Amino acid sequence: MRTPDPARTLAAELAEAVPGRRVTLLGHVHRRRELATVAFLIIRDRSGLAQVVVRSAEHPADGLPPEETVVRVTGTVAANPQAPGGVEIVDPQIESLSEPAAPPVVELWRPTLETSLPTLLDHAAVTWRHPARRATWQIAAASVRAFRRVLDAADFTEVQTPKIVDTVTESGANVFPVDYFGRTGYLAQSPQFYKQQLVGVFERVYEVGPVFRAEPHDTVRHLSEYVSLDVELGFIHDHRDVLRLLGDVLRGMLDGIRADAAEELALLDVTLPVIPEDIPVVHFRDALRRVGAPADEPDLSPAHERALGAWAKEEFGSDVLAVEGYPMRKRPFYTHPQADDAEGSNSFDLLFRGLELVTGGQRLHRHSEVVAAIEARGDSPSAYAGYLEAFAHGMPPHGGFAIGLERWVGRLVEAANVREVTLFPRDVHRLTP
Amino acid sequence: MRTPDPARTLAAELAEAVPGRRVTLLGHVHRRRELATVAFLIIRDRSGLAQVVVRSAEHPADGLPPEETVVRVTGTVAANPQAPGGVEIVDPQIESLSEPAAPPVVELWRPTLETSLPTLLDHAAVTWRHPARRATWQIAAASVRAFRRVLDAADFTEVQTPKIVDTVTESGANVFPVDYFGRTGYLAQSPQFYKQQLVGVFERVYEVGPVFRAEPHDTVRHLSEYVSLDVELGFIHDHRDVLRLLGDVLRGMLDGIRADAAEELALLDVTLPVIPEDIPVVHFRDALRRVGAPADEPDLSPAHERALGAWAKEEFGSDVLAVEGYPMRKRPFYTHPQADDAEGSNSFDLLFRGLELVTGGQRLHRHSEVVAAIEARGDSPSAYAGYLEAFAHGMPPHGGFAIGLERWVGRLVEAANVREVTLFPRDVHRLTP
Repeated sequence: MRTPDPARTLAAELAEAVPGRRVTLLGHVHRRRELATVAFLIIRDRSGLAQVVVRSAEHPADGLPPEETVVRVTGTVAANPQAPGGVEIVDPQIESLSEPAAPPVVELWRPTLETSLPTLLDHAAVTWRHPARRATWQIAAASVRAFRRVLDAADFTEVQTPKIVDTVTESGANVFPVDYFGRTGYLAQSPQFYKQQLVGVFERVYEVGPVFRAEPHDTVRHLSEYVSLDVELGFIHDHRDVLRLLGDVLRGMLDGIRADAAEELALLDVTLPVIPEDIPVVHFRDALRRVGAPADEPDLSPAHERALGAWAKEEFGSDVLAVEGYPMRKRPFYTHPQADDAEGSNSFDLLFRGLELVTGGQRLHRHSEVVAAIEARGDSPSAYAGYLEAFAHGMPPHGGFAIGLERWVGRLVEAANVREVTLFPRDVHRLTP
Repeated sequence: MRTPDPARTLAAELAEAVPGRRVTLLGHVHRRRELATVAFLIIRDRSGLAQVVVRSAEHPADGLPPEETVVRVTGTVAANPQAPGGVEIVDPQIESLSEPAAPPVVELWRPTLETSLPTLLDHAAVTWRHPARRATWQIAAASVRAFRRVLDAADFTEVQTPKIVDTVTESGANVFPVDYFGRTGYLAQSPQFYKQQLVGVFERVYEVGPVFRAEPHDTVRHLSEYVSLDVELGFIHDHRDVLRLLGDVLRGMLDGIRADAAEELALLDVTLPVIPEDIPVVHFRDALRRVGAPADEPDLSPAHERALGAWAKEEFGSDVLAVEGYPMRKRPFYTHPQADDAEGSNSFDLLFRGLELVTGGQRLHRHSEVVAAIEARGDSPSAYAGYLEAFAHGMPPHGGFAIGLERWVGRLVEAANVREVTLFPRDVHRLTP
């Protein structure tokens, strides 16, 4: 595992292989092409593609394996400027490691997967094998790795908080009930309350994990289960400190993609976004004015967000725009009000290419204020006992944010639907595969 | 975030601070000790403890803040061999950033937390603040970080798979039903089926995420939600390849703890286990013989596991022991049989200090064999359509394992109960905090 495997050469290593050497490839038959006098097998492994030239005498007794069959090919390295990487394999011995594969629902060897979204999703186990799809997930994985790298370097502690909870928190709607040993539990809509409590312990925490929203809308940007990259930190001055950290994190994620997924970026022809050192910020009330919405509008519509995204690109050359000062009445009860306007909040949404990607801000941290906020919305503090305990025993000023992983990747690769970049998406209609 | 904060000095940085310099500490009041002529505040931040000497004239107008209050202390660095790190803060200005804290249910400043388990768990938000508890989680976080580091270096891809699934899989029991938009879904007992499908895509995958077991037993080692460190890889020869990777991963986790949590190890006085380069392996039938159990016993009891753990320590100086060749009838249907004995399996359990920590092995990879195994247990292949699709289109020989994070940390720090090392444990009786 830790050193190159002498019994195996990866497709990507072939370009460096010495012509005339015998090597062994392991992978799927990506493409089988039979011409009059010769056949070509393209082998796909985790690193890429390799071409194998098969003459009639070299066909296995049971015939050339069909596409997607898993094979071991031992052959001789030969230079060929026409082959991928300038190298191909000749004089092969071919052995199937799986049964002959049935033809997949889509032709995986075609450069682009031209198929309907339902087919793509219904057959996820095979459609993800397509190099272009696989590349989008490698970008997701590189993003998450870099997210952690930035935060680990800044002394954050990774936490793991429960996904089954006892009360409907936050928004009070759109939750999935769970039969928990005969009682009713709920799937956590976010780790919000837990990450805040843990700021009292570790001061700086993050979590990468699933969150659950019983989202009745069937849109291109909503999932009922998605991966949330959650961050919370103590000893901030206000939400602008949170936004600065968010900028560091997002730029770190782009660096991670450049470093770890350069080939995937090239394959997908992705242009990475510009995230300036100082992310442009607009106040909610100015945002409304700019998009021509009434001043008493409580929220931004998707169309507003798109218009603001286009404006940020034109005005600041930025692919992101922070909208701060959302009305308190539209934000969760734990939101910290603005210093100079109790109707406004020290919170922000980050628009990424015109789509809400991140919600963040400063939270209330004084016990009496949290209790008052809960009571103001007609709730009983006793329903929040575990959460409030942290505040009763001293909490630092703090804030945080949450990035939706699928939205991030979807906007990066400009997918039309967030489901395309989700391994096995869940929505109001979809619970399989 | 990325450079030392000029406006703040961490407790752990004080030992390097220049005497006579003014510095600012931020943290909780860990301990308040008032003597006749002078008071001491011990400040706790994410890095450790710092001592502040407060003379009468320096008391804040509203009095010395009680323990757990969050404060900003600006004062002068002074050498004092008796103080932690040989340095203390004198001439302080003290400002409270939270309301005065209520006294916690346990005295967090005592070196050991002497309290009952229910108190510890019921008041998790504050009991985790105790330095010894906090250290156990830092060991958990360092373990997970190193788990990923080893696998990233070996070209694994991190995946995120759904936690709400449509069918009861694997064991067929002990699942939590979810009301999924009026239909019944279930919480995933493991990412097993998904990680296998993704071996067909990425060849080598891992996932760190919650798994859910509606575990009716109330024991010191069971949780109904825990963190599973899941690994699956293709192109193996048999389960021994999986075991070798597991050894690399576990030794990497120990290296990570040594590197990232050295102070925590010292604080908890933890002796790290010995995990030999070649993990000792015993066949299930020999394990039964060794513990004096009947040859037709289908499984090992906890007492057997303890006896085998003690034997491995004595005989091989090893804190781990792999038991391989478990009877097929006690393993999940996807288990690969032993080459020379169809009743035995190419699977293993890894005992860590006498407790089952990891289950792993080789899986069936030929479509016809997987279908036959499903039918043999009286199930319909149609219930496994998404899973079987991967096999119909070619899957490499593969295998993998899953490590229970809480069990790993629990045995490392020799906790009496796995709940002690779980941030917010869930069990048959506990859905809060």
